[in-house]
Amino acid sequence: MKKDGEKRINLKFTIAYDGTGFAGFQRQAAGERTVQGVLEEAFYKLTGEYPRLIAAGRTDTGVHAYGQVINVVTGSRIPVDRWLAALNSKLPRDVVAWQVEQVPLEFHARYHAKSKVYQYRVLRRPWPDVLRRNYCLHCPDELALEPMRKAASYLVGRKDFAAFAAAGSPVKSTVRNLMRLEITEKDDELIFILEADGFLYKMARNIVGTLLLAGRGKMTPEEIRLVLEEKNRAACGPPALPHGLCLVKVDYPPVDVSNKD
Amino acid sequence: MKKDGEKRINLKFTIAYDGTGFAGFQRQAAGERTVQGVLEEAFYKLTGEYPRLIAAGRTDTGVHAYGQVINVVTGSRIPVDRWLAALNSKLPRDVVAWQVEQVPLEFHARYHAKSKVYQYRVLRRPWPDVLRRNYCLHCPDELALEPMRKAASYLVGRKDFAAFAAAGSPVKSTVRNLMRLEITEKDDELIFILEADGFLYKMARNIVGTLLLAGRGKMTPEEIRLVLEEKNRAACGPPALPHGLCLVKVDYPPVDVSNKD
Repeated sequence: MKKDGEKRINLKFTIAYDGTGFAGFQRQAAGERTVQGVLEEAFYKLTGEYPRLIAAGRTDTGVHAYGQVINVVTGSRIPVDRWLAALNSKLPRDVVAWQVEQVPLEFHARYHAKSKVYQYRVLRRPWPDVLRRNYCLHCPDELALEPMRKAASYLVGRKDFAAFAAAGSPVKSTVRNLMRLEITEKDDELIFILEADGFLYKMARNIVGTLLLAGRGKMTPEEIRLVLEEKNRAACGPPALPHGLCLVKVDYPPVDVSNKD
Repeated sequence: MKKDGEKRINLKFTIAYDGTGFAGFQRQAAGERTVQGVLEEAFYKLTGEYPRLIAAGRTDTGVHAYGQVINVVTGSRIPVDRWLAALNSKLPRDVVAWQVEQVPLEFHARYHAKSKVYQYRVLRRPWPDVLRRNYCLHCPDELALEPMRKAASYLVGRKDFAAFAAAGSPVKSTVRNLMRLEITEKDDELIFILEADGFLYKMARNIVGTLLLAGRGKMTPEEIRLVLEEKNRAACGPPALPHGLCLVKVDYPPVDVSNKD
């Protein structure tokens, strides 16, 4: 119920979470602990409002986020610069809000996202590292960089990624612009950086899983190119496990905040 | 019961664990999950022996280890080079054995340790990082490096660390040789490195907790020097929380393995 004269504002938050203890971002039917559920509960405690929370990306079970973006329209009178402390005081230790700004009422965290950056971490050591067990895929076997990079080069650009989309996700088009697919080495980790204007369901994990086959010599870069061109979902590698994946950043076009209320 | 002709060997393992889910290293009376308990159970499953497991350091609840060293005398016929795979197959995901070697029967992981290196991680950011929440102390406030380093310089050397030992731990002497106490910056972390020939109970955390007071301007380096000299336990800072601490490395003198059986 909107009160007469109540001023409503749209708040954009940048959120980090450890996906290990969550059944994904999106609120589930019953009993499952989700990031959305935890955030909405915190908002309710602060404002008494049941918020309509919109997120840039709905990450899967076990997938982490450093730069997830959400927006919420609220009538709360909490000043913008107090929101982080207020919200974090109501959040569990595995979710943190670390940035907030007021945005125009029409701003929509999902529709207006220009690009998303995911990172996938692979740990290359003979034995797992207990402190990173929930954040890196452990690969004790040898991974050849060159074939992975060659295969990656075939995937970059505006392409039809039907072969890399999990079945059962109805979307109008499976064409996406993969602007960046880099593989870098950092200490004992191999880090995959994927940036696209949008990701199909499990697309990031399917791409990494397929590139890992190239790294292990089980698929050639040319075979991976054919998978893409022939939209051959059956020949695509298995999705890499979720716990190596992290939504790092969501980019938006510059917004006009001159008339933000 | 030792069988006739049974050959017993002494195995030295290097172990890493995430202390978050453990009530410390040492086996407790009942019901508590401990690293020692989990390791002994794994040994029992593999060998049918109830091992007498000796560890270099008995870390507290919440404290991690990357390079904890244990030794076990066993009559098992598992070849040395198969032990890591065998042991890890019986260990939970938060403990991993990553190095093994056969050592002389008289080798004792605690008595023979020459020095131990602990690391304490402090995260300097306005908001906590969810992925490091169990591994770094979060310090959103400003920490001045110079006073911390100055105070640290007073603590290095062979000194009586009575002021930095928790009460109630009976030891013959409170003199220890603190060979190294460095504070380095790595990205958004401040890392304290402490190396000594031995650590009194909570000594590492008490030292870090006291240095943090210097970093926050709540104690001067000279005051900290007085705490040490006057063995004034009451004036020592509170112990830094356990989750930032990690036993990184245990060093031993070179051993003579020429007659290891």
